[in-house]
Amino acid sequence: MIKAQIVGATGYGGLGMTELLLRHPEIEVTSLLATQDVGKRISEVYPHLRGFIDIPIEAAGADTVGRDADLVIFATPDGVGQSYARDLLARGVPMLDYSGDFRFGTEAQYAEYARRHPSVGGKPHVSSELLAQSVYGIPELYRERLRGARLVGNPGCFAVAMTLGLAAAAAGGLIEPDGIVVDGKTGISGAGKKPAAGYHFPAANENVAPYRIGSHQHSVETEMAIGALMESPVDLTFVPHLVPVTRGIICTIYARLREPLAQDAVQMAYQSFYGDEPFVRVLPPGVSPGLASVRGSNFCDISVTTIPQQRRLIIASSIDNLMKGQAGVALQNINLMLGFPETTGLERVPIYP
Amino acid sequence: MIKAQIVGATGYGGLGMTELLLRHPEIEVTSLLATQDVGKRISEVYPHLRGFIDIPIEAAGADTVGRDADLVIFATPDGVGQSYARDLLARGVPMLDYSGDFRFGTEAQYAEYARRHPSVGGKPHVSSELLAQSVYGIPELYRERLRGARLVGNPGCFAVAMTLGLAAAAAGGLIEPDGIVVDGKTGISGAGKKPAAGYHFPAANENVAPYRIGSHQHSVETEMAIGALMESPVDLTFVPHLVPVTRGIICTIYARLREPLAQDAVQMAYQSFYGDEPFVRVLPPGVSPGLASVRGSNFCDISVTTIPQQRRLIIASSIDNLMKGQAGVALQNINLMLGFPETTGLERVPIYP
Amino acid sequence: MIKAQIVGATGYGGLGMTELLLRHPEIEVTSLLATQDVGKRISEVYPHLRGFIDIPIEAAGADTVGRDADLVIFATPDGVGQSYARDLLARGVPMLDYSGDFRFGTEAQYAEYARRHPSVGGKPHVSSELLAQSVYGIPELYRERLRGARLVGNPGCFAVAMTLGLAAAAAGGLIEPDGIVVDGKTGISGAGKKPAAGYHFPAANENVAPYRIGSHQHSVETEMAIGALMESPVDLTFVPHLVPVTRGIICTIYARLREPLAQDAVQMAYQSFYGDEPFVRVLPPGVSPGLASVRGSNFCDISVTTIPQQRRLIIASSIDNLMKGQAGVALQNINLMLGFPETTGLERVPIYP
Amino acid sequence: MIKAQIVGATGYGGLGMTELLLRHPEIEVTSLLATQDVGKRISEVYPHLRGFIDIPIEAAGADTVGRDADLVIFATPDGVGQSYARDLLARGVPMLDYSGDFRFGTEAQYAEYARRHPSVGGKPHVSSELLAQSVYGIPELYRERLRGARLVGNPGCFAVAMTLGLAAAAAGGLIEPDGIVVDGKTGISGAGKKPAAGYHFPAANENVAPYRIGSHQHSVETEMAIGALMESPVDLTFVPHLVPVTRGIICTIYARLREPLAQDAVQMAYQSFYGDEPFVRVLPPGVSPGLASVRGSNFCDISVTTIPQQRRLIIASSIDNLMKGQAGVALQNINLMLGFPETTGLERVPIYP
Repeated sequence: MIKAQIVGATGYGGLGMTELLLRHPEIEVTSLLATQDVGKRISEVYPHLRGFIDIPIEAAGADTVGRDADLVIFATPDGVGQSYARDLLARGVPMLDYSGDFRFGTEAQYAEYARRHPSVGGKPHVSSELLAQSVYGIPELYRERLRGARLVGNPGCFAVAMTLGLAAAAAGGLIEPDGIVVDGKTGISGAGKKPAAGYHFPAANENVAPYRIGSHQHSVETEMAIGALMESPVDLTFVPHLVPVTRGIICTIYARLREPLAQDAVQMAYQSFYGDEPFVRVLPPGVSPGLASVRGSNFCDISVTTIPQQRRLIIASSIDNLMKGQAGVALQNINLMLGFPETTGLERVPIYP
Repeated sequence: MIKAQIVGATGYGGLGMTELLLRHPEIEVTSLLATQDVGKRISEVYPHLRGFIDIPIEAAGADTVGRDADLVIFATPDGVGQSYARDLLARGVPMLDYSGDFRFGTEAQYAEYARRHPSVGGKPHVSSELLAQSVYGIPELYRERLRGARLVGNPGCFAVAMTLGLAAAAAGGLIEPDGIVVDGKTGISGAGKKPAAGYHFPAANENVAPYRIGSHQHSVETEMAIGALMESPVDLTFVPHLVPVTRGIICTIYARLREPLAQDAVQMAYQSFYGDEPFVRVLPPGVSPGLASVRGSNFCDISVTTIPQQRRLIIASSIDNLMKGQAGVALQNINLMLGFPETTGLERVPIYP
Repeated sequence: MIKAQIVGATGYGGLGMTELLLRHPEIEVTSLLATQDVGKRISEVYPHLRGFIDIPIEAAGADTVGRDADLVIFATPDGVGQSYARDLLARGVPMLDYSGDFRFGTEAQYAEYARRHPSVGGKPHVSSELLAQSVYGIPELYRERLRGARLVGNPGCFAVAMTLGLAAAAAGGLIEPDGIVVDGKTGISGAGKKPAAGYHFPAANENVAPYRIGSHQHSVETEMAIGALMESPVDLTFVPHLVPVTRGIICTIYARLREPLAQDAVQMAYQSFYGDEPFVRVLPPGVSPGLASVRGSNFCDISVTTIPQQRRLIIASSIDNLMKGQAGVALQNINLMLGFPETTGLERVPIYP
Repeated sequence: MIKAQIVGATGYGGLGMTELLLRHPEIEVTSLLATQDVGKRISEVYPHLRGFIDIPIEAAGADTVGRDADLVIFATPDGVGQSYARDLLARGVPMLDYSGDFRFGTEAQYAEYARRHPSVGGKPHVSSELLAQSVYGIPELYRERLRGARLVGNPGCFAVAMTLGLAAAAAGGLIEPDGIVVDGKTGISGAGKKPAAGYHFPAANENVAPYRIGSHQHSVETEMAIGALMESPVDLTFVPHLVPVTRGIICTIYARLREPLAQDAVQMAYQSFYGDEPFVRVLPPGVSPGLASVRGSNFCDISVTTIPQQRRLIIASSIDNLMKGQAGVALQNINLMLGFPETTGLERVPIYP
């Protein structure tokens, strides 16, 4: 069994990985590190885990990160993983990082991200020499590079939904690179476990509100990934909204078609692009996409609608933000890193209702 | 006291009007008509009204519509109001209709709407000769025509949010008429009182899903109103979404600026356009717009954000769909029709949290 | 106009009072004090108030409390009001306090409450000589004493629902004083405005959980009030639960009937006891009580059901916790204190849906 | 592989079984019968199942029920299973029924249930000779009889929570048999898939309301099971409430202790009674029970609190109503019927948040 260590074990992202690995036949969680709740058992922090895993949480630090581990998963904010990466890789321990630390292949790209992310605030990368060997963790686009990779940057939750929503159209040359609008809606768990005024139940319930209008950092990743597919800079406007659900992201994407394509042509392009993907479902016309159909699973459900006379393509892309948007895609990446079948431990049927 | 009759009294739209008129000093509800729950008291159908109004519901029909009424309010689906309008106007009874029956000034415009509305299905108008004298009930745009009007078509709920969101930019010549995207989110009460699979709690809760992608009838009204302001046809893509809240609509609107205007210029244009409006609040930069700040009130809260380098204008426009989107704007229109101060009975402070 | 000062103006309790007084013809809010957000305008803290009230928040302290005020309302935690009361009363300024500080007429009663309330922790009262002149603010039981009172202790939110639910049966001698069970359910706003782990949206949503099982302090008030009505000590078990709604409390109360009374007898006893009360509605059999029918209003809706063969009485008592459970009952008390008609400013129709 | 047929496949109960059997190594769903959506694929009715199971729904009838099946699961309303049972058993096909049809061992017990259940309305059982061989499906109490059983009556969802909550105290002789109060709260999925006024999102959201006060049929089962354990008739008052969550039941149970037992004694009695149970977790004192910790799993989480001076025992018992309350306990029963390890296919970790 592979021994996995989770750094940031008490947040929702670390929790999601713990839950998944409880059912993985080849990987077991042997160490949980965090900066809060140190000394408590994880099942005290999360009572639903009682009887499944009761190991204590240890303090994250230079002496504990990577110790007795075959794999380290950083479910931590920006800046943590990059401070440990050099040492871990030198010791031969592969790592996956949930934050933006290793999503970008060059210092210039990272700098653009760091500038736009309010909690990074433009700080330079402390292990920038590793960026070139890091792989961005969207298996549908970078599967071959992920196989056997030692350093993977897990994508942002919104970026997964919008990149998968756009990739087939971009790769097929169906859309213009400018004037793309992405209207994102996320459940409150996307903000993490820490209570704050905007996520207080009476404030978030019965409310829908946009935030960081036009400046959300998650679109940087998509702009780069889609720009690479289109071999052209991409002009994209992204507005995220908080919606009163616990789990789920849906991105409604508006792009301009190069040609006034009919529904069939775009539908076929998407089905062909994602034909064999285990975790992308292209919905037939008339099937309503929505958060409920992917909850608890690693799926990305995509629907496409064309309005030929307007040269308009409308894409709806839904994921469970804590699964395909976080722990699920992370495990998919880890399976590729370690050579296990890509779907191992991810066969969960969505839970409905 | 003006005697008001409400047709369609048992739906949410009729209910909203009943609630408002309970606090109106000049108008009283004297008759409630419906096709369901006939014979019951309204406080049996809606127990929260116990002690406020306990009159019985009568069957709507040729013998009851307009009887002993100084004003008839049709809170009914498309097609009902138009079948009674000719007779009522002949008898000198003014009317306001919630449906699409009298939102359009010409048969051609109505035909376009009727074609796109699934429940109208292209049927021709049965009182089309009255369209020319009907007034479209958005007071911020058509106040003078509404004063003393005898026949008013109340706007669609989504149309209120998107038209008010766009009007200042359109009137000021700030935006291009094409490539406008409106991403709408509505609470489930927008679907009315009748239970159906998509509005069943377990189906709607913890879900967000788009519907009628690109074909929603409510954008016809906005295209016409905004097109008139811009003196140009408008190319607009509208996708509505159901979100799991009871009340509220927020439209996030993406338009292209004609010039790379800075935030200040657009902010000032909006503040100046809506300066004296009693029910439109232009939010200062940094104040998050959202459903919670307008709940229970007749306000439309609007925020604007520019991204000059993209020539992008992002507008967020929030209303309570049952107030400014339905009964509230209806009462505002009725006050204008009957010569009462426009805000009478509408001074409700939003309820928060 | 009476000049009212609100201490604790930025919490939900202070907010509720501010909202209500905006529509009160005889009282106006002239001063808002708090310990947080000092210097901000209240409409910056609560954007829904924009245009209604924009006065700045001042720091609460010895120099500001009571200044230029005809009335001071303490919407503050336990311990604050009692530290200012002596001085205010000496200066002739009447006050109402939301906390437990003045709910009890004797030191012994206060001590029992203080012992059971975790945030009071048994600390002695610092103005205990004033307890004898304080009045407990449940108008339905203590109306005459509240008229002209100078010092009123507003009841706890749960206590309002359970005391009104039990009072008619207790006064009528219908029930045994022991073995009473109160199962309470409260919306999350009852926990106040401050974010915490249990009120974080992802934690509270889709959850129902009991808390402080058998030890909640709010039952002390009810035990004393109901015990006084029964002239006997009362043995009551109270378990509160958090439910994922923003507003509302419902208490389901199980008592043993002294005689195997039929439904009619108990129904009539309740209707007669509450016959003229402006804010208590005794529901007829078959009308489902629930939070939705009182939301936004000052009503307490009560239903009673008997199971004669079990000598069982089941009472369901619903209120809006921020209205009849807090700011609404406070204003009702204030109207009595100041000699205004009791319902002034409280005529709000419940908002539904 | 065992071939399982589900009758009533399009309701939530049939869906839950389908989802579970997709991950069962020994049983596969080979036939889905229903009266609605006949001819559609199950993945058209439930889009989240796309790619997992796409077989068509067939009409339920004498020619299809039991055909090519090694096991028939009736996820149907009362009265359906009993009309097919004689024939199926004669053909050697074991069956489990979700309804009340086979929960009772005698005609007298069934008659009491039938009288109290509004949708049964007192109708006599059509296969009453089979009742003697039927087994009531609560594995924690009737495990040995369930092994190899051919006819199992799955328990009602509320009955699971309250019976498991009370069983340890009843078996240990800790409580009095009379004066038991059960206050139940259920998510809306407990009402099934069919839309109705009370489950319409705007009606159920932001609401909590009791229903069928004192007359809910689910307590009959518990009275009989607990009465048998106590060898005494049980006097129990049960009031169910609808709460605005999709999944979950929590029963708060109030009983009188025979002796003023301290917390430790009761805690130990429960831990010892449920010591080896795979799906019952007795929570340590201080761990808050709640719906969130069991969601998506087959667990029943139980907490106990004593108030010795009141001789009061308070039990909180939480389940996922669609799992341990329906499909989960059904599969646990089926595993026992067919000789598979009891936990097969039920190892799901609860999903949190």
